[in-house]
Amino acid sequence: MMPRRSFWAWGMESDEPTTAQRRQMAESLSKSYGVSLEVPAVPTSKDLDLRKPRVTPPSSLASICTTDTHDRAVHSYGRSFRDRIRAFDLHFPNPPDVIAYPRDEPEVEAVLDWCSSRGYAAIPFGGGSSVVGGVEPPEDAAGVVSIDLAGLNRVLEIDDVSRAARIQAGVYGPALEEQLRPHGFTLRHFPQSFEFSTLGGWIATRSGGHYATNQTHIDDFVESVRMVTPKGIWESRRLPGSGAGPSPDRLVLGSEGILGIITEAWMRIQARPRFRASAAVTFSSFAAGAEAVRHIVQTKLWPANCRLLDPGEAADALGFDGEQAVLVLGFESGEVPQGEPMRQVIAIARGCGGVVDEDQIKILDQSSQETGRPEAVGAWRNAFLRAPYDRNITMGLGLVAETLETAITWDRWPALDQSVRAALQESLKRVCGGGRVTCRFTHVYPDGPAPYFTFEGMGRRGAELEMHEEIKRAASDAVIAAGGTITHHHAVGRIHRPWYDQQRPDLFAGALRAAKSALDPNSVLNPGVLIDP
Amino acid sequence: MMPRRSFWAWGMESDEPTTAQRRQMAESLSKSYGVSLEVPAVPTSKDLDLRKPRVTPPSSLASICTTDTHDRAVHSYGRSFRDRIRAFDLHFPNPPDVIAYPRDEPEVEAVLDWCSSRGYAAIPFGGGSSVVGGVEPPEDAAGVVSIDLAGLNRVLEIDDVSRAARIQAGVYGPALEEQLRPHGFTLRHFPQSFEFSTLGGWIATRSGGHYATNQTHIDDFVESVRMVTPKGIWESRRLPGSGAGPSPDRLVLGSEGILGIITEAWMRIQARPRFRASAAVTFSSFAAGAEAVRHIVQTKLWPANCRLLDPGEAADALGFDGEQAVLVLGFESGEVPQGEPMRQVIAIARGCGGVVDEDQIKILDQSSQETGRPEAVGAWRNAFLRAPYDRNITMGLGLVAETLETAITWDRWPALDQSVRAALQESLKRVCGGGRVTCRFTHVYPDGPAPYFTFEGMGRRGAELEMHEEIKRAASDAVIAAGGTITHHHAVGRIHRPWYDQQRPDLFAGALRAAKSALDPNSVLNPGVLIDP
Repeated sequence: MMPRRSFWAWGMESDEPTTAQRRQMAESLSKSYGVSLEVPAVPTSKDLDLRKPRVTPPSSLASICTTDTHDRAVHSYGRSFRDRIRAFDLHFPNPPDVIAYPRDEPEVEAVLDWCSSRGYAAIPFGGGSSVVGGVEPPEDAAGVVSIDLAGLNRVLEIDDVSRAARIQAGVYGPALEEQLRPHGFTLRHFPQSFEFSTLGGWIATRSGGHYATNQTHIDDFVESVRMVTPKGIWESRRLPGSGAGPSPDRLVLGSEGILGIITEAWMRIQARPRFRASAAVTFSSFAAGAEAVRHIVQTKLWPANCRLLDPGEAADALGFDGEQAVLVLGFESGEVPQGEPMRQVIAIARGCGGVVDEDQIKILDQSSQETGRPEAVGAWRNAFLRAPYDRNITMGLGLVAETLETAITWDRWPALDQSVRAALQESLKRVCGGGRVTCRFTHVYPDGPAPYFTFEGMGRRGAELEMHEEIKRAASDAVIAAGGTITHHHAVGRIHRPWYDQQRPDLFAGALRAAKSALDPNSVLNPGVLIDP
Repeated sequence: MMPRRSFWAWGMESDEPTTAQRRQMAESLSKSYGVSLEVPAVPTSKDLDLRKPRVTPPSSLASICTTDTHDRAVHSYGRSFRDRIRAFDLHFPNPPDVIAYPRDEPEVEAVLDWCSSRGYAAIPFGGGSSVVGGVEPPEDAAGVVSIDLAGLNRVLEIDDVSRAARIQAGVYGPALEEQLRPHGFTLRHFPQSFEFSTLGGWIATRSGGHYATNQTHIDDFVESVRMVTPKGIWESRRLPGSGAGPSPDRLVLGSEGILGIITEAWMRIQARPRFRASAAVTFSSFAAGAEAVRHIVQTKLWPANCRLLDPGEAADALGFDGEQAVLVLGFESGEVPQGEPMRQVIAIARGCGGVVDEDQIKILDQSSQETGRPEAVGAWRNAFLRAPYDRNITMGLGLVAETLETAITWDRWPALDQSVRAALQESLKRVCGGGRVTCRFTHVYPDGPAPYFTFEGMGRRGAELEMHEEIKRAASDAVIAAGGTITHHHAVGRIHRPWYDQQRPDLFAGALRAAKSALDPNSVLNPGVLIDP
């Protein structure tokens, strides 16, 4: 049998944790939380019992559609805590009826036409790593078709003069990089979901990537987009820049599948880095580190990496002592040495009280090796990639754990930091009897940081969903009250709707609703996401 | 009497050329073109004879409205060649009926409500420097009110921690900078129209500014926008970055007054530069220079200035010999020395055959003086600021002269350059018996340049409008056929509509039309600009 995605865990079925791993984790957690945890068996596909499909594809589409139970389970949810715990608990009250796997754009059109003519909800599905309910069926649909773009997985064309590539939207991160590598190029967009997310998904959700400054979102790398809608094809012109009316691409970016199904994009690509500089700087507090980061980003030296970990994150991810904040810095270039900007940034950091061991500064020129990072920088990178897998092990042990993120201007950041931490601590105490809250900056701007919070508490097995919801709600309320955005790069989906609705101009929602009606008159595209139908 | 804007020339009435200046210019042009030019007298306000106003403001608005003839003439047109020649010729068949000068946002709302309830066209007016018919009344309106935002001219708030300022939309460039200067800040957005354009106008038209790379358009400096629409106030949240749905601000940016009247924005501001580096590099051809520019911008060193002049421009603006292309380079920073990136860029330029005299490289640290530019760089800057005034002198002498601009990916740039030049030369020959075409890059991107063409030919006095139109049409056809955008930073207005309509996705126009209907149900806001009502 072909390797399959796990229907509940992050990754493939082979990434599901072993019972031994889970027992070891349960022991460790039992000790930390002073409890005695049971270790339930992980669910298997055989345990799945889904509602019968309510919809039968027409014979012309039968060969690219499936109603396979495992497949429908995989396409029922994204991969948030809420999603994974429901899947782990085999709770699938509202799965999609049919999964369609178009192999090319005409098949995307055919599937969408079928949905539109019958009034079935059509959910564009990329890698399925949404953490905001972005690929979850609406509750009130007569039929739901999840349209999985995995078949559109090729780099079609490379323009090495302009450094751009025409790429199909369903390609996963690793396959995309693999196709660019022989040409000496890279997109260098590495969200944490990189392995299980697609170009189309990144564009639809305004994914945040590798670069901590300047070109933070996928938005900046989109040269043009091609999208299938119920009213036909939407394709923007390939342009390096334009001032002709509001940007058509910027209406597609962040549209989360409600306007159309992205099939292709011309993307700006990069030379592979040959020159690198990296360093780790410690600070006596998160606030001291934040002040250094503010000064650094306001110089517009644009480090590729500029991630500040609070003392808790530095302890968890890097093994620091829990007293120091750590700033992970990196510059990279395919063309020119990066020593000078690193020295300038280090000087700023030191001026703000940062401490840098000389052996934690590495300047590598003319090397294409992925080696030579300072210890803390390499450790941060590994922790970053490992995090979503680690959550597989704790699933169903009762732990309630999640991340949430925002962005805020510098002047209001201290108050937001304080109030979101307080909301998390207070709700964790109320719900779980206590817990742990940490924060880092994933991306930073001259006018403010994008803080990323991680929380964890020991819940009651079977009640995780409600407990999680109460904590997440408290934090989201605090984010919005403090002036932040409900999401910097996780998107809105269904889960963030109540706060998004408070955040965006009401008139913008009206304009977006009108635009959607013009493109999707039967309102079949991902209904309920971003706006009410 | 208060100083007034000229109703036909660039600038104030005091900027109108003297008869002596015009005689001298006529002699010089007569010699170059082998003709004998008449020098008609410049028109004066007393010569104006406008259609009587068709509309009377309600008494509640009377004190902020005027039907003054000079004012109505000033608000009839922008400042393109087409506009100036019509104004010079006292050709005002369709002036606005009333000019409203709201002093605050409630007055903007009141004026717009009046227009919306009566179905009068409401034209938001900033500095009036549109070159695309963006402030010109539609022909089929029952009444036209030009809403001049000049009264909303203050910087309301400065957040020096986040480096952002809340600024009223009607402020002109110089007044804006004057209010930021005492705080050590600058917006550093210097379009050629800087003196006679406003923040709101920049946002509405996606103005291109000072920075030749990276942060090229005003778009990048907008933190949030506040806009009055017939359906109420649209205000986005102040955020350094966000991934919550399609960006509301990006729908306002480039909306050219059809969605609402921008009243305020939070703008990202900069520290005033203290460190600078500048240089001028010569190349044997425009193509050789372009190859260097491509390599430079693809390094992502982001020079603030990176303007390549073809041999003709280099001769006209800098007094070069007409054989060499010249690249004007600049780096600047409020925080860190700029020598290293300049040396890296110079090395790339030299590697591409560029020649740099050592005395044409200037690296200035810790100085806030506006001095010390290399000769060619200073000359370029002066020529840039002087250009629109120079066109006043030739008005009505028969000369047909204009600029047009686009952007294109590098792979298609050579063909576009060739075909646009050919279209201009061929149409100049047909229409004027010959003429001159030059080009420079105003902004450059890793994936392509923004070429800016200047053309000039000797037309027939009285027929300039039709001659100009034929040449402009030929060039615009060539731009679109070659894959370019009809505008990189001059906007669409009424003049670029036929080509914009070919360029943008049809479905985007449908979405924009629907969005406009939701905000402006009576379709009174700048009707005919960007989309048909």
